[in-house]
Amino acid sequence: MLEELKNRVCKANIELVNHKLVINTWGNVSGINRDKGLVVIKPSGIAFNSIKAEDMIVVELETGKTIEGKWRPSSDTMTHLEIYKNFPEIGGITHTHSINAVAFAQAGIDIPVLGTTQADYFYGAIPCSRELYQHEVDKDYELNTGVVIVETLKGRKIQPLAVPGIVVRNHGPFTWGSDIEKSVENAIVMECVAEMNLKTLLLNPKASIKQYVLDKHYFRKHGNGAYYGQK
Amino acid sequence: MLEELKNRVCKANIELVNHKLVINTWGNVSGINRDKGLVVIKPSGIAFNSIKAEDMIVVELETGKTIEGKWRPSSDTMTHLEIYKNFPEIGGITHTHSINAVAFAQAGIDIPVLGTTQADYFYGAIPCSRELYQHEVDKDYELNTGVVIVETLKGRKIQPLAVPGIVVRNHGPFTWGSDIEKSVENAIVMECVAEMNLKTLLLNPKASIKQYVLDKHYFRKHGNGAYYGQK
Amino acid sequence: MLEELKNRVCKANIELVNHKLVINTWGNVSGINRDKGLVVIKPSGIAFNSIKAEDMIVVELETGKTIEGKWRPSSDTMTHLEIYKNFPEIGGITHTHSINAVAFAQAGIDIPVLGTTQADYFYGAIPCSRELYQHEVDKDYELNTGVVIVETLKGRKIQPLAVPGIVVRNHGPFTWGSDIEKSVENAIVMECVAEMNLKTLLLNPKASIKQYVLDKHYFRKHGNGAYYGQK
Amino acid sequence: MLEELKNRVCKANIELVNHKLVINTWGNVSGINRDKGLVVIKPSGIAFNSIKAEDMIVVELETGKTIEGKWRPSSDTMTHLEIYKNFPEIGGITHTHSINAVAFAQAGIDIPVLGTTQADYFYGAIPCSRELYQHEVDKDYELNTGVVIVETLKGRKIQPLAVPGIVVRNHGPFTWGSDIEKSVENAIVMECVAEMNLKTLLLNPKASIKQYVLDKHYFRKHGNGAYYGQK
Repeated sequence: MLEELKNRVCKANIELVNHKLVINTWGNVSGINRDKGLVVIKPSGIAFNSIKAEDMIVVELETGKTIEGKWRPSSDTMTHLEIYKNFPEIGGITHTHSINAVAFAQAGIDIPVLGTTQADYFYGAIPCSRELYQHEVDKDYELNTGVVIVETLKGRKIQPLAVPGIVVRNHGPFTWGSDIEKSVENAIVMECVAEMNLKTLLLNPKASIKQYVLDKHYFRKHGNGAYYGQK
Repeated sequence: MLEELKNRVCKANIELVNHKLVINTWGNVSGINRDKGLVVIKPSGIAFNSIKAEDMIVVELETGKTIEGKWRPSSDTMTHLEIYKNFPEIGGITHTHSINAVAFAQAGIDIPVLGTTQADYFYGAIPCSRELYQHEVDKDYELNTGVVIVETLKGRKIQPLAVPGIVVRNHGPFTWGSDIEKSVENAIVMECVAEMNLKTLLLNPKASIKQYVLDKHYFRKHGNGAYYGQK
Repeated sequence: MLEELKNRVCKANIELVNHKLVINTWGNVSGINRDKGLVVIKPSGIAFNSIKAEDMIVVELETGKTIEGKWRPSSDTMTHLEIYKNFPEIGGITHTHSINAVAFAQAGIDIPVLGTTQADYFYGAIPCSRELYQHEVDKDYELNTGVVIVETLKGRKIQPLAVPGIVVRNHGPFTWGSDIEKSVENAIVMECVAEMNLKTLLLNPKASIKQYVLDKHYFRKHGNGAYYGQK
Repeated sequence: MLEELKNRVCKANIELVNHKLVINTWGNVSGINRDKGLVVIKPSGIAFNSIKAEDMIVVELETGKTIEGKWRPSSDTMTHLEIYKNFPEIGGITHTHSINAVAFAQAGIDIPVLGTTQADYFYGAIPCSRELYQHEVDKDYELNTGVVIVETLKGRKIQPLAVPGIVVRNHGPFTWGSDIEKSVENAIVMECVAEMNLKTLLLNPKASIKQYVLDKHYFRKHGNGAYYGQK
């Protein structure tokens, strides 16, 4: 079932390695079929260089129950599901441990918007979530990671497709998009701007960007007035 | 029309990826035919790995009107044209989002000249332009980016071929040259010296170079007294 | 003799180059056969690109005496043996000069645990050993390097498989594991987290992680309650 | 003439690109035949990817006069010759613009010895030369660069094969060795330790190493008491 989705999810997971966003078995990509209420995700702890489309796991959006697949799904599955449940506009989710984005996650600070590279993809700072409380970690940790991601976005009134990513405190980046491939692209861009911004802050800790430049760049690529790219 | 120019512009765009100066659809290279008043430029938002010479767009220098090509031209086309119009000695322009040069652009500081690597190509600091005002961004943003580049060079009395590049504040590097290939070479060198200089400033924030060393290195490669390379 | 072990040790040494953890002849991997009391290790000063399984050296665990092999064993052999002797749970040891881990070794500071990437493999900070005294360096230097590694682990009451690595002061990383391949994996992970943590500390020198997050991540991958990966 | 030397010099120049120590036409390697008083060096301003052994230039050690070759020799030829003339134990010289070593050159500070990686190759800090005076730059600049290198080594009583490299202030690294290949190896090592040390200093500006550790590592690889590597 869902062969096309499995193919795309598998390919997207392999892209993480090609773009050096993960090593070993770290990170995972998922995609959703909203009509059927099913999510396809990478199996847990399987090396990227050996995964095939048929290794992908199909789980139920509502329950997380495995519907198809010979492996356990990614340990982060409940995080993905919580995000999908709260934001119906999201079609794909990517989680990596890319080095520069993790540095912001570990430092506990937002990836600030300092330039047009970020503004082309993220309408504002990429938030860093709060630390989880002990009871949130001890029980249902992966679910609560999703709960805190949702809480951060809603608390800051962020539209998830306008700022399609977050760094989870002490953990690392999650990105998403209207489809699987866009969630991967946003993971690539987040790592790139994290490196740019870290270096910028070393040169000038007070660096900033005017809101109207952010508006311009974001809206020339997104929404009704967009004129970047092809029709 | 302009098949040779299209080939060179296409090849130059692909070089940006090979030298890791851009990812995704970022950045663009153009070349000019001064006799015909025509500029060849990369189409907007097209991935580098799939572009062919026939995808290049031909636009009119004076009006920016597309003369030939099935795609929209790069969204930065008006920036390129403004530079070409003001500096007849320029034959090619390259725009990238290379990480270390962007760090200086976002920090809002010039890439200072600290060593002979930069002095071999840039006769002095690589300027960082001022922030655009809101009215410059809201209307004709890309044109005004070019206007500010020209204003910066003229305001500092910089000969564009002596300092063949700039970092646009909060945005990133634009480089140029007497031809297309030199504009790409200058983009490669700018990224390299940006990384050198960032690291130098971390070791010694007061690093500097004597003017007579800058003079020596620049003029042993450029002008009538040059003796570097072959005749 | 020990052909399978030689093959695995040889392959593991080559992995160090593939993962850019060493250049030239630096670094070495060994594996142990506890039943026979024999250790297989890379020869000293041989370039990685030319080594074959038959070049591996077999030495006696107790004495360090070469049992088989046409070359001198790695100059670090006595360090490996001292670690094997004190910790029977260790099956393989890897030594590299990977750049970010060496930076912590040279700075003389532990690689602090700041995120879940490290917590998945290391249950706590990766210790930096003390400086050796002059008499420890002048005589039996390589043996004493092992002695100080053991002293550091025992002094801090660290279970070697719970924190499977150390940075030796002014020198570099040693990692280990229940087998050869795990010792290499831990070397790869240590270099990755060293880079993450160095960058984190540049952004926020006071970065930290809650103990309960460390507990959660470590124990979801290790021990009886583990649920990461496949059964 | 000197075909074998030309082959080795050519190969060594190409190694600079393979190890990412140079881009474009930067950097150069030379080798000397002491019996004939001849030096073989890369031509000036020729891209590395197209050079062949027959492009190498033969110059006279005493005069710098070109004896054979269809191109101009490297503009840095007189620097090389000055080093060869003063230190008969040197058989090969390498000059690069590798990024981290250049950062120290531009910062105007020695690459301090902080760990065993450097101690294995360099018996002490890698010196940064003084700035050249204007009259030294205006006339015979390349010769005077060599003069200052020699002055630095002699002034600090450094045996050139014990500390086989220097960073020339505001310029970049020169390394040497008893033969061509060793000079390249030292260039690779210098860049590696420059990166390690820059990162170390960011973590701990007061990092240091005990003299007896430096002695141990250097002398276990060099001199009569050496026991690293094979006999």
